[in-house]
Amino acid sequence: MIRVEPSIPSVKGFRVTGVHAGMKSESRLDMTLIASDRPCTAAAIFTTNQVKAAPVLLSEEHMRLSAGQMRAVVVNTTCANACTGEIGLKNAAQMASWAAQRLGCTPQQIFVMSTGVIGTHLPMKKIEHGIELAVGTLQPARWAEAARGIMTTDTRPKQASAQVISSHGTYTIAGISKGAGMIAPNMATMLGVVVTDADLSVMQAQSALRTAADVSFNRIVVDGDTSTNDTVLLMASGSSGVRIEDAHDLAQFQEALNAVCISLAQQIVRDGEGVTKFITLHISGAADAAAARQIGNTIATSALVKTAFYGNDANWGRIIAAAGRAGVSFDPAQARLWMHPGEALPEEGRGLLLFENGMPTPYDEEQATAIISEPSIYVTLDCGQGGAEAVLWTCDLSHDYVTINGAYRT
Amino acid sequence: MIRVEPSIPSVKGFRVTGVHAGMKSESRLDMTLIASDRPCTAAAIFTTNQVKAAPVLLSEEHMRLSAGQMRAVVVNTTCANACTGEIGLKNAAQMASWAAQRLGCTPQQIFVMSTGVIGTHLPMKKIEHGIELAVGTLQPARWAEAARGIMTTDTRPKQASAQVISSHGTYTIAGISKGAGMIAPNMATMLGVVVTDADLSVMQAQSALRTAADVSFNRIVVDGDTSTNDTVLLMASGSSGVRIEDAHDLAQFQEALNAVCISLAQQIVRDGEGVTKFITLHISGAADAAAARQIGNTIATSALVKTAFYGNDANWGRIIAAAGRAGVSFDPAQARLWMHPGEALPEEGRGLLLFENGMPTPYDEEQATAIISEPSIYVTLDCGQGGAEAVLWTCDLSHDYVTINGAYRT
Repeated sequence: MIRVEPSIPSVKGFRVTGVHAGMKSESRLDMTLIASDRPCTAAAIFTTNQVKAAPVLLSEEHMRLSAGQMRAVVVNTTCANACTGEIGLKNAAQMASWAAQRLGCTPQQIFVMSTGVIGTHLPMKKIEHGIELAVGTLQPARWAEAARGIMTTDTRPKQASAQVISSHGTYTIAGISKGAGMIAPNMATMLGVVVTDADLSVMQAQSALRTAADVSFNRIVVDGDTSTNDTVLLMASGSSGVRIEDAHDLAQFQEALNAVCISLAQQIVRDGEGVTKFITLHISGAADAAAARQIGNTIATSALVKTAFYGNDANWGRIIAAAGRAGVSFDPAQARLWMHPGEALPEEGRGLLLFENGMPTPYDEEQATAIISEPSIYVTLDCGQGGAEAVLWTCDLSHDYVTINGAYRT
Repeated sequence: MIRVEPSIPSVKGFRVTGVHAGMKSESRLDMTLIASDRPCTAAAIFTTNQVKAAPVLLSEEHMRLSAGQMRAVVVNTTCANACTGEIGLKNAAQMASWAAQRLGCTPQQIFVMSTGVIGTHLPMKKIEHGIELAVGTLQPARWAEAARGIMTTDTRPKQASAQVISSHGTYTIAGISKGAGMIAPNMATMLGVVVTDADLSVMQAQSALRTAADVSFNRIVVDGDTSTNDTVLLMASGSSGVRIEDAHDLAQFQEALNAVCISLAQQIVRDGEGVTKFITLHISGAADAAAARQIGNTIATSALVKTAFYGNDANWGRIIAAAGRAGVSFDPAQARLWMHPGEALPEEGRGLLLFENGMPTPYDEEQATAIISEPSIYVTLDCGQGGAEAVLWTCDLSHDYVTINGAYRT
């Protein structure tokens, strides 16, 4: 059983920091640097949006040129460096060069992430100043600062770590993320950096990260928009001396990586813009996994469903109707819907049954209202069509979401 | 040139009414009956949602059994008769029977529509009383009452009519619709009834209605949710004696039907829940028509785009990013984006150019803000990839939308 901690002590081979480069006001941290003492095995997942920011394009190129052997990632906030053309690409490359010079590696070994306003250029003097500050303050234990340095509209930093005791020794997996704050006209939804001192091959790292993202970052929905800058990076220093060798090692690593990524992903939902409720959406009995996911995504992005949760209305009808328009086979006569307070189900049962046989059950409306008024709600929709399932985490749509996203860009 | 009037005088062969059956409070009209003196050629389009309300299932069956020869449509509000199982189907059939008895036709010639709360049963005593009242008050000129009788959260009735002078004589097309009020847990998005005294075949009617819906009701987006009850019905009495015969007649009829349906559809968007802005979204230069529509739909349903419009923020970045995740080919380097105040473009130009060559233009932010602060905005996104285009009408996402849809079911 993997135990995930909400903080990060240190991870062998890595020194990290968060600094105030002068982009945010009031000395708030606005830049993060995570550096390895030696080349790391790296894997990354980038946004599927066809509008990709300059740092995404540059980092994809660097990953290719260095064959997945990276030394550091530098992250700036307040400017996404997206929709910035050739100048944006040059600026991203310059940012990598400055970090490389000061860390004593090649620019191709630097991974760059940016988050913030789009359509504006990086403030290069502040970027250069920030990199200098950051390199000068690198420490093994400055993870709290690193987590703060990538925040945008996040109200709190997001960290998670797990120690794994394997048959070859002990290693650590740790990560930070920044959240689903889609501030105007910031489209930078999420960034994540996960590091480990285990020793992995590039192929192991890429496969493990993809699997982990599929059960974590790809399962969260705040408003359904995806950004120009979304990136998750995994760096493995190997400094623990623990080599991931056989299938058993890999399974153990995967379990821990999944747990860390799920924690980071759930922290993003909990801290989403204007969020008042954390909703676990469990689709079961679907014809296949893609159908389960599609039904879950349609429910999770429905403005009607999200406003009902906000209004403490156990509105099963909106959930059933969203499932009906998901574009995959769905038969309300076969479906059943339950709600339960909290983030997990009890040993037995799935909570209060609201809907079956194409109709509402004679449930007690007060009981349903009590459940949906909780800060966390577990919703199970069994489609009655097959054996596939999917779990998603989502949130409500509140007045504050509209206020935050209706505010003029500043 | 077709001139669409915002009211309906009378249409030969039809008698209509709206009555207070006692379902709504304060004597507000809550039931509508539209009846023809003789069997009409009818065509209908039903919701694509797989969760279909009882009146939808029954009316589909009646259309089949009567081979598209209908006598009347009866519409009740406050109860959608959706997710009501066998009882719901029996109640819908009973509603049709009562109307048939009193109008002197077969139940299969009655079309039934319901809108309102789902998961509750029709108040059958009130329904019977309402039908009796309605049959007793049928008049050729009670269209204003008919339009009021189908309202739910609509703040105003929606009517449109056009007179067509053809080479065979003059005929009228007229319709009413009810809007995009998705009140809790009402999922009944839209209903529409269009009648004409022209003489059409069933095949002509079905083809013309499908074409008209495709450029009207299928082009409006309020919140992207589709309902269990969405239905549009066309009834042609032929009482004008004007037969739609050749291709020229049909083209003229189609043009007028399109114009009436577009008016009814736009009235729905303008009166959408919490709407403060009417947005025309013109996607041009797309690879094909499906891609144009897909890009338009993704932009129109983006919570980030909709809140930016609400906040008077000319946030081109969110529009470009939504296009980038639409799931069809989109290249920001080829795209251009303009905004213009109002509901149509001037003779020349497309307004203020905000984005091209993958970057914002050096536009004047104050000028952009002035445009987006208007009650109507025309947005053109040219994809630069081909010759296909699509026009959609949509609205913003406001605090009031959240208030209305977060309110508990009552």
